[in-house]
Amino acid sequence: MQTIPHHILLIKCPDRAGIISNVSTLLFKYNLNIVVMKEFVDPATNTFFARAEITGKLSVADIKKQLHQVFQHDSTVIDLKPSTKKNIVILVTREHHCLSDLIIRHHFNGLNAHIKAVIGNHNVLEGLVEKFNIPFHHIGVENKMHAEFESEILDTLKKYKPDYIVLAKFMRILSPEFVAAYENRIINIHHSFLPAFAGANPYKQAYKRGVKLIGATAHIVNNLLDEGPIIAQKTIPVDHEYSVAQMVKAGHEVEKSVLAEGLRLILEDRVFVSDNKTIIFN
Amino acid sequence: MQTIPHHILLIKCPDRAGIISNVSTLLFKYNLNIVVMKEFVDPATNTFFARAEITGKLSVADIKKQLHQVFQHDSTVIDLKPSTKKNIVILVTREHHCLSDLIIRHHFNGLNAHIKAVIGNHNVLEGLVEKFNIPFHHIGVENKMHAEFESEILDTLKKYKPDYIVLAKFMRILSPEFVAAYENRIINIHHSFLPAFAGANPYKQAYKRGVKLIGATAHIVNNLLDEGPIIAQKTIPVDHEYSVAQMVKAGHEVEKSVLAEGLRLILEDRVFVSDNKTIIFN
Amino acid sequence: MQTIPHHILLIKCPDRAGIISNVSTLLFKYNLNIVVMKEFVDPATNTFFARAEITGKLSVADIKKQLHQVFQHDSTVIDLKPSTKKNIVILVTREHHCLSDLIIRHHFNGLNAHIKAVIGNHNVLEGLVEKFNIPFHHIGVENKMHAEFESEILDTLKKYKPDYIVLAKFMRILSPEFVAAYENRIINIHHSFLPAFAGANPYKQAYKRGVKLIGATAHIVNNLLDEGPIIAQKTIPVDHEYSVAQMVKAGHEVEKSVLAEGLRLILEDRVFVSDNKTIIFN
Amino acid sequence: MQTIPHHILLIKCPDRAGIISNVSTLLFKYNLNIVVMKEFVDPATNTFFARAEITGKLSVADIKKQLHQVFQHDSTVIDLKPSTKKNIVILVTREHHCLSDLIIRHHFNGLNAHIKAVIGNHNVLEGLVEKFNIPFHHIGVENKMHAEFESEILDTLKKYKPDYIVLAKFMRILSPEFVAAYENRIINIHHSFLPAFAGANPYKQAYKRGVKLIGATAHIVNNLLDEGPIIAQKTIPVDHEYSVAQMVKAGHEVEKSVLAEGLRLILEDRVFVSDNKTIIFN
Repeated sequence: MQTIPHHILLIKCPDRAGIISNVSTLLFKYNLNIVVMKEFVDPATNTFFARAEITGKLSVADIKKQLHQVFQHDSTVIDLKPSTKKNIVILVTREHHCLSDLIIRHHFNGLNAHIKAVIGNHNVLEGLVEKFNIPFHHIGVENKMHAEFESEILDTLKKYKPDYIVLAKFMRILSPEFVAAYENRIINIHHSFLPAFAGANPYKQAYKRGVKLIGATAHIVNNLLDEGPIIAQKTIPVDHEYSVAQMVKAGHEVEKSVLAEGLRLILEDRVFVSDNKTIIFN
Repeated sequence: MQTIPHHILLIKCPDRAGIISNVSTLLFKYNLNIVVMKEFVDPATNTFFARAEITGKLSVADIKKQLHQVFQHDSTVIDLKPSTKKNIVILVTREHHCLSDLIIRHHFNGLNAHIKAVIGNHNVLEGLVEKFNIPFHHIGVENKMHAEFESEILDTLKKYKPDYIVLAKFMRILSPEFVAAYENRIINIHHSFLPAFAGANPYKQAYKRGVKLIGATAHIVNNLLDEGPIIAQKTIPVDHEYSVAQMVKAGHEVEKSVLAEGLRLILEDRVFVSDNKTIIFN
Repeated sequence: MQTIPHHILLIKCPDRAGIISNVSTLLFKYNLNIVVMKEFVDPATNTFFARAEITGKLSVADIKKQLHQVFQHDSTVIDLKPSTKKNIVILVTREHHCLSDLIIRHHFNGLNAHIKAVIGNHNVLEGLVEKFNIPFHHIGVENKMHAEFESEILDTLKKYKPDYIVLAKFMRILSPEFVAAYENRIINIHHSFLPAFAGANPYKQAYKRGVKLIGATAHIVNNLLDEGPIIAQKTIPVDHEYSVAQMVKAGHEVEKSVLAEGLRLILEDRVFVSDNKTIIFN
Repeated sequence: MQTIPHHILLIKCPDRAGIISNVSTLLFKYNLNIVVMKEFVDPATNTFFARAEITGKLSVADIKKQLHQVFQHDSTVIDLKPSTKKNIVILVTREHHCLSDLIIRHHFNGLNAHIKAVIGNHNVLEGLVEKFNIPFHHIGVENKMHAEFESEILDTLKKYKPDYIVLAKFMRILSPEFVAAYENRIINIHHSFLPAFAGANPYKQAYKRGVKLIGATAHIVNNLLDEGPIIAQKTIPVDHEYSVAQMVKAGHEVEKSVLAEGLRLILEDRVFVSDNKTIIFN
């Protein structure tokens, strides 16, 4: 919402006494104002996490250098960046609901990102994407090895240099090599309340099990299928009157809502990944 | 809420045209009034389910006989019973929250059942139960085989002739023989959003997985552990600040709420079991 | 979801014994199958409401005539119609989120209606609407009396013969004459959990009052501003960190979701209006 | 959850640069560890709020003195207190559900407070309270002026020196004098989603209006009836099948849950009152 240019500072380091004092005193010395600051110490790993929104004129290189002198531990991660829009590329298959939601937000300046391109392994969504003057690349899977398919996507991605890749109901599994190329930068929406119903056809599984809630999970993709760090989850009630098709339809509502929320958190630099979990400063 | 004596009619039969007409005409002929009637046809099995609340003077035997003449198919289930309070026995271990909730409702006439007794494999909840003049039986597991333990419980249950047995955080697994003795009449609260985190220590599993929602599931017990037909489920948000202990504490709130809701549905004869699922007329 | 052509039967009449029997027997006689039937008796007014989905070949005129012979009371309302898509016209001002949501659903065949046109008192949403080949009419309020403004809208509406008019964040108050012309056929989304914060600037009111939940209400428009029968409501949590602008942004999510849900209920003929309330068979 | 003795520090002061640096450096100098610290700057009033949980040996008087030297502005509020259990007295009328919930939590050490006594203007809840060995005082309203009634309550309260007074469905309005005697220390549960349905019989109002959600509000009592700062709110769905009595019953579930949550926030010193709103660090 703010109009004053500002920066986001992210710190992850082994916990010790005095960290907040050290950081806040350093920033104060540089006449920088901390608008919001949130911290968390993970007792399981004794790790300190902080996210601060900072206003004031600053040299990123200079401040980072000073901070690294304060936090000399090897495992310390310090990130300082202007709060500008990120670039994203969206991968899709056939279902429109998550893509439509992101494109509309983008069109009306409600997405904190530039959608540089959409890549589909089918072309059914090309018409929609082009209405909004976003490049659409159809990269099919027919008559080629999976490695070739991924290589074509990677080549296309290179042109757009995305900060994040969004899998908006992209129904193909990505190889460890692909995931490694964009470590912690691929966001997926899974159509179930993970870890329930991981894998294929979650709504069919949910129908068979007779659950009374269905859900969706936005998570960061790692090499373990449907096992990456969870960013956001939501459930909605269903009952015995729901067929699989009706669960799918109801599920679309929650999928697009959860992906939008998870992506917002990522794009606003609110998410730390720590092992297989997320720390989220919202 | 109603004060007029009334009956609940439950019908499950193969679907065919004219069922509603047949039933409603029959009841009309006997000057019975259908206050509420809900139906459902399961397209997967082509089965018709109905629940009706009926007012008026009737002979259960007579009406059932007439209904059986209408529905001659072998697989038809017809149940007709006065809407009176059921008898229940509650099984507990150490945790009080679900038991307390039921006892307080019972004490103030808010539970649609008589709590005939509480059985605990520990005695820590005896003091609470006795404050409310409900018999408490301590049946420990020490120095005995599981079969002997269950046999003692079954003997105790026999005295009370419960319509339903409620496992209010009873932390022992019941044998197939025990479950068979009270088929579809044992209600359990599981401390997770099943099927996620079935088995032991669900909150620890949830913590490790880094989920953003935790939940609880009230279900009917069958011989597949944590796999019985689900009656009610609910989730609540958690975040990275929750330790396992805090998840447990937050989970208690949702557990007692879901058990109370699931039990209400059972006690008001709103639940059909169909294979491994429930049809619920609420 | 169904593919078989079917009809919706709606009945509202003074309650008496035998109604379900009468209706179901009549339909059975005509070889019509009741797929779903739901009833409700309002004890406050002793009125019977029912909604049935019927399959089979039928003559609407013939069945309605037969039904009227069964229900001879003057106040009885019987409606029988094929379950086909309705025609709607959407009225907007400047905010896009509800309109975008409906247009995207429509484009991908997920809205149970034809959007015949969009009318805006501003033209900022014209570009979006025309991307999807839907007629957009800009009818401004400048330099004209309110009656003239409404008259232009009414003239435009006449061309499209809409079954329903949807106010998707249309920020002008309609006169009793306008409302009377489309009685119970105008659906509005109000950006608060009514009756809290009726009137202008509900998010500003909510911010000032320091509420911990904000919400939205889809309702049928009548002549009492923000007092029409409520169809759907939803709330979401907010806290002290939300500015008015952030409440507005968060509110947009719930507004579009509630309007879509309310409109679905209307378009599927699930809503009865009874005095100032709705009976909804979902 | 923690076992190490610790203190809660609360600061409210005009915002300026360097506050976090000043405070954290001071605490660091005294070898005190900030376990959790949360801050908020209210842009509407340019006020800084912070809550910190601190471990380490400290002299409250000494630290407060040092802090006051840092924050010399007259309007600054500094509170530093050990995180020990508070004393509360509960006021009730006839309804048991909120009282029962608090008494059970208290009995099993789940309420972060000592219930010193319960005062009822009826005596129907005396039996329950005495089962748990808590003093119950019946102070009726018959044959006395309201001032006399309040004076008897105030005399009784004096004996118990409560930190907070909890109105657990106490159906009498307190005078400005009474409220002033316990400024910002009286917590009420209101049986509606305020500001909707303020005043008497909110469920009857909700029924008449045909709302699709009902709710409850925990708030701090001030002299404007039902207008005090809101701590917690929650809503649950209802539909046309709910009578007023059923809304009341469903509402009891949400009332007790919201009061418990609001009280937890108060008892853990997480709530700042700022004008007519709350800032809550949860």
